[in-house]
Amino acid sequence: MSFPSHVRLVEVGPRDGLQNEKQPISVADKVALIDALSDSGLAYIEAGSFVSPKWVPQMAGSADVFAQIQSTDRVTYAALTPNMQGFEAAMAAGVREVAVFAAASESFSQKNINCSISDSLKRFEPVMEAAKQHGVRVRGYVSCVLGCPYEGEIAPNEVVSVANALYQMGCYEISLGDTIGVGTPHKAAALFNAVAKDIPRSALAGHFHDTYGQALANIYASLYEGIAVFDSSVAGLGGCPYAKGASGNVATEDVLYMLNGLGINTGVELDKVIAAGLQISQVLGRETGSRVARAWQPKAQ
Amino acid sequence: MSFPSHVRLVEVGPRDGLQNEKQPISVADKVALIDALSDSGLAYIEAGSFVSPKWVPQMAGSADVFAQIQSTDRVTYAALTPNMQGFEAAMAAGVREVAVFAAASESFSQKNINCSISDSLKRFEPVMEAAKQHGVRVRGYVSCVLGCPYEGEIAPNEVVSVANALYQMGCYEISLGDTIGVGTPHKAAALFNAVAKDIPRSALAGHFHDTYGQALANIYASLYEGIAVFDSSVAGLGGCPYAKGASGNVATEDVLYMLNGLGINTGVELDKVIAAGLQISQVLGRETGSRVARAWQPKAQ
Repeated sequence: MSFPSHVRLVEVGPRDGLQNEKQPISVADKVALIDALSDSGLAYIEAGSFVSPKWVPQMAGSADVFAQIQSTDRVTYAALTPNMQGFEAAMAAGVREVAVFAAASESFSQKNINCSISDSLKRFEPVMEAAKQHGVRVRGYVSCVLGCPYEGEIAPNEVVSVANALYQMGCYEISLGDTIGVGTPHKAAALFNAVAKDIPRSALAGHFHDTYGQALANIYASLYEGIAVFDSSVAGLGGCPYAKGASGNVATEDVLYMLNGLGINTGVELDKVIAAGLQISQVLGRETGSRVARAWQPKAQ
Repeated sequence: MSFPSHVRLVEVGPRDGLQNEKQPISVADKVALIDALSDSGLAYIEAGSFVSPKWVPQMAGSADVFAQIQSTDRVTYAALTPNMQGFEAAMAAGVREVAVFAAASESFSQKNINCSISDSLKRFEPVMEAAKQHGVRVRGYVSCVLGCPYEGEIAPNEVVSVANALYQMGCYEISLGDTIGVGTPHKAAALFNAVAKDIPRSALAGHFHDTYGQALANIYASLYEGIAVFDSSVAGLGGCPYAKGASGNVATEDVLYMLNGLGINTGVELDKVIAAGLQISQVLGRETGSRVARAWQPKAQ
């Protein structure tokens, strides 16, 4: 376990981010965003979701998005596929990596996806099997790892249990998500330590929200735990639906600025991510959620 | 050197914060803010500045502020006194602790206070002497410790030199300020290590700006260097005049939330600081700069 010299950023803005923005945006704007992010050097972009548009209207048109992006072999373009229907639609759209998600909180699972944690895991079994047959890798998300809007604090052993289940089902990487952003650095570090008893640290990722401004401090603490993959969202796309007016996903620009300052290599060009974030913020008609982008904006004028 | 179990927060909102807000506010509003902050358990409040109102109109009326606050012995109310005229005015107003400031960057010193670093230090000599005679403690600020808007990166030895000068002149505590917020955690830690060669860590404080969102990560890294005093500003008062649209001082609420999560004792009630911050933000007609306050606002409604 050592402080990483290289970090892989998983860009979740086009999916997790836009899904939580009120205003739906066009396929063309999504494609432009993803292409701009690809061009920045990001090697992993969550580009869409294959779910019922009845539940998540913002993700309608994901097949068109995958068809229209200027895909490059250097970048992994992933899609969320919560069930077999979604997985098959993703395969039909040419998707080569998918993701599934479960909650560490029973109440959150019930209210968010209308079934128990255990039932949600069962739903993934055919997806995992089909993915194996297609030679498609599956990433697993666990939400509410440091707190739940309904239950408050979540015990680390609840997270361990769900993370282990996803890992044993075949997910190659488990992303631990502080969905409501309530975590602080020691708690984040302790959680990774608990989960790393069964899962190699190289197969773990941190997904922090900046709702309480703690995301970068949590990432910094996680780096010391040997975690070297972090999810982030350009322009901080994706407010938190459980706390009005609050920010959600940590901004890719802010994470990148810190990693650059720490001398950690990412292969990503900050200028280009800032430009992509300012562009999509303009489309959404809102200010960027990235502090780095706000500080840089005047210089660009 | 150990991770601190107790941290003292130095609240700089009513002075450093309001001084950098465009809109001047009334003495009554300042007094209400300071009284609300006193009531939260904060033990140190920078309450005003005795400088020419020609240069800093926002600080006019500091004598009235000191006369009207409901002062309590539990709280230190400090004032900035850059020269003898200011110091004498502060003494006449009954101030019992003062602060002086110097820059670690020659260009910043020239452009900000129109004299060299060395000349600025000379100006403090009579202030230090008079303070000694009055039995008044003097806190020293060093600005631009991790970067300068004119010179870029600042070498740690420049900071060491100015910090040592202030400490040797009799300042009991030296606050190292990342005025433009460009620092990242390893750089902050390295700087404290450099300065701590000559000055005890217990006599050092961190003053971080959130312009690039790095303040909490920098504070977290500094805690591991044994630093246990941090400056912060309620509601993140004080934009950064050198980067339009950018945020400045780190918000007290956000720092406090992290410290609470780390199990560090501060003696400060977060709810009351949030309430004080929302109140002054309303007076200023702007949104609070604290992410914690923004996340908590809906709950309060």
